[in-house]
Amino acid sequence: MKIVERLDDALTRIARQEEELHAWAHVDATGARRQAASSLPGQPLDGVLVGVKDIIDVGGLPCCLGSPIYRDRIAFADAALVARLKALGAIVLGKTTTTAFAYLEPAATRNPLDLARSPGGSSSGSAAAVAAGQVDVALATQTAGSIARPSAFCGIVGYKPTHGRFGLAGVASSAPTLDTVGWMTRNVETSLRLHLALGGDTPIGPAHSLGFCRTMHWDVAEPAMRNAFLRATAMLGASEVPSPPGTLETCHRTIMHFEMARDLSTDWLQHREAMSPPLHALLSQPAPSARDYREALSLRRRFDLDELFGTHEVLLTPSAPGEAVPYGSTGDPAFNRFVTLLGCPSVTLPFAHGPNGLPLGLQIIARPEQDPMLLATAGEVEARLGRERTL
Amino acid sequence: MKIVERLDDALTRIARQEEELHAWAHVDATGARRQAASSLPGQPLDGVLVGVKDIIDVGGLPCCLGSPIYRDRIAFADAALVARLKALGAIVLGKTTTTAFAYLEPAATRNPLDLARSPGGSSSGSAAAVAAGQVDVALATQTAGSIARPSAFCGIVGYKPTHGRFGLAGVASSAPTLDTVGWMTRNVETSLRLHLALGGDTPIGPAHSLGFCRTMHWDVAEPAMRNAFLRATAMLGASEVPSPPGTLETCHRTIMHFEMARDLSTDWLQHREAMSPPLHALLSQPAPSARDYREALSLRRRFDLDELFGTHEVLLTPSAPGEAVPYGSTGDPAFNRFVTLLGCPSVTLPFAHGPNGLPLGLQIIARPEQDPMLLATAGEVEARLGRERTL
Repeated sequence: MKIVERLDDALTRIARQEEELHAWAHVDATGARRQAASSLPGQPLDGVLVGVKDIIDVGGLPCCLGSPIYRDRIAFADAALVARLKALGAIVLGKTTTTAFAYLEPAATRNPLDLARSPGGSSSGSAAAVAAGQVDVALATQTAGSIARPSAFCGIVGYKPTHGRFGLAGVASSAPTLDTVGWMTRNVETSLRLHLALGGDTPIGPAHSLGFCRTMHWDVAEPAMRNAFLRATAMLGASEVPSPPGTLETCHRTIMHFEMARDLSTDWLQHREAMSPPLHALLSQPAPSARDYREALSLRRRFDLDELFGTHEVLLTPSAPGEAVPYGSTGDPAFNRFVTLLGCPSVTLPFAHGPNGLPLGLQIIARPEQDPMLLATAGEVEARLGRERTL
Repeated sequence: MKIVERLDDALTRIARQEEELHAWAHVDATGARRQAASSLPGQPLDGVLVGVKDIIDVGGLPCCLGSPIYRDRIAFADAALVARLKALGAIVLGKTTTTAFAYLEPAATRNPLDLARSPGGSSSGSAAAVAAGQVDVALATQTAGSIARPSAFCGIVGYKPTHGRFGLAGVASSAPTLDTVGWMTRNVETSLRLHLALGGDTPIGPAHSLGFCRTMHWDVAEPAMRNAFLRATAMLGASEVPSPPGTLETCHRTIMHFEMARDLSTDWLQHREAMSPPLHALLSQPAPSARDYREALSLRRRFDLDELFGTHEVLLTPSAPGEAVPYGSTGDPAFNRFVTLLGCPSVTLPFAHGPNGLPLGLQIIARPEQDPMLLATAGEVEARLGRERTL
């Protein structure tokens, strides 16, 4: 199918679904058609259809951070990663919804697999748009669990690169020590295609040695998740490793709170009455001291990754406690926080179904800069579990 | 003198000097008068007059990064630190010049002490405006030596806080692992006043033990600097410590190059013909690989600060090789790069004069988060060297 036809199909699908789904903050049909008409064939991401989370700038389009405070803001220039995708032939359809300031207050977006449920957050619209087949790729960001959790809830593949790989130029700041830009797709192959087009190394092969970890949050995992997770890890031949120390959680909380209080000063000082209730509640609390912040950074720096991974190249954990939660909350990032803190790349993929027939997500984690091996492993896991499921 | 009168004086002075000095990218007389008229007396920074480097957003004002690419950009909101200063009673007079993208190409700005010379860079306008008595404080940023070097060249006090203290929300990105927002003043007292108003701890006292270091760049220090530096350190009773390893320089170069190539992707892909020649030259070179970048981050992380400081609390080095260089270059940040790399806070202050009667700068460095002690030490050094000079 030609690019303009695929684009027309996508725009029609969005128009048909948007009233129920609310995945988009702004659809730029005109701009997308112009990009499609002027695209040079044979580029690495020729005609790949992309949605961009509404905390990431696309030049000339609104970028409103899911907040009334930024209702009138138009981005002057593309974020660095957006410019790179465009230059590779990808077509940006518009801006996908986000929770306000990528924090906890649910966006209007619904889960395309069950409209009574949450698509997760904060990258709510990105996950919903990909799951609903409206775009091939959606850019998203993760500070706690905002790529992994919505990907799991919507049954798609979420990739959070090694921290710092793609930078945050043109991305609204939450907590830059943690903030990571990545993307969501319907399969690992498309994720790997982007990775390679953006100059990532070709994987030599998947991991030889898989570990799995119940983590310090096993008690919040639902029974269906526990069973499915232990079955899948056994089937994949993964061996269990101990949970990482709980201090990593405190460390994540301290860094996130300090940096959000610091970087959202303007909004707090000038527009606090327009902030969402959970964000207002967070910023009303006294922020950690500079000394506690420095101590948390230092603990993060000194953490020995071998303590987490043991001798394994990748680690498997649940992506979320269970299926998508009912609309009204965006769910719990418990299983993702320590991964984000450590800057480790991770892939979330659907691997089983819960009691309501909704997908459960498996989180695969690697050491920093092991993204090619991680993506190759995710591809293999996806294929093996897919075969398993059809049996 | 009342605030409105001080402001009028400042605006008159700017109007009179600007034709020769070119310190301002944009003067916002109307906005400043409005702030002055509505200011509540008794605030901690009541009536403090501030200039803001033109890579830092002030809501509603142009923010052009010293580049024609951003000529038409108007900032939507205040950068976090700008909002905090305004909320404390400070009055923003406008945007001070910067070299393009805070890199090397000189701005039009001249050194107020000698118009044939450079004010240094990249925070050229900030240093010139403070030195010319146009504002009390100017916000500036440092990625290599962009606070220390212009402060030294203009004979003022430059403070680069511990990396991360004030965050980069609303500040154009160069290399965020290094980018640090700080400020310039005419004396340490004003710098300390800002520090305290912004919630910094009150210093318990100055350093008990001063070290000094010739650094790996002693060979580029001019004879007058060498002599004055060794005299001053002797007078202050500082003991010599060995130079830090040259690998820190490579490490700084790798991180800066990788992150600039990453974060300036949009400008490189869409507007490279409008980039300044030195920036174009840097970005034309192949960027370091992700692996080399990670290795540099790790080396920086693992560096033992005791190796640099020994048993001392602060370290003295030259701020720059010598006096302000002739207009046409912004000078050499050799003495500042390793300080920025390590995230250490530093204060630059004028401590002697060179052969042309222009100021020489002394750089005082402390371990991260030791900003209160550093500022107290800088105040004592300033007083002692001042007494010395008047003898």
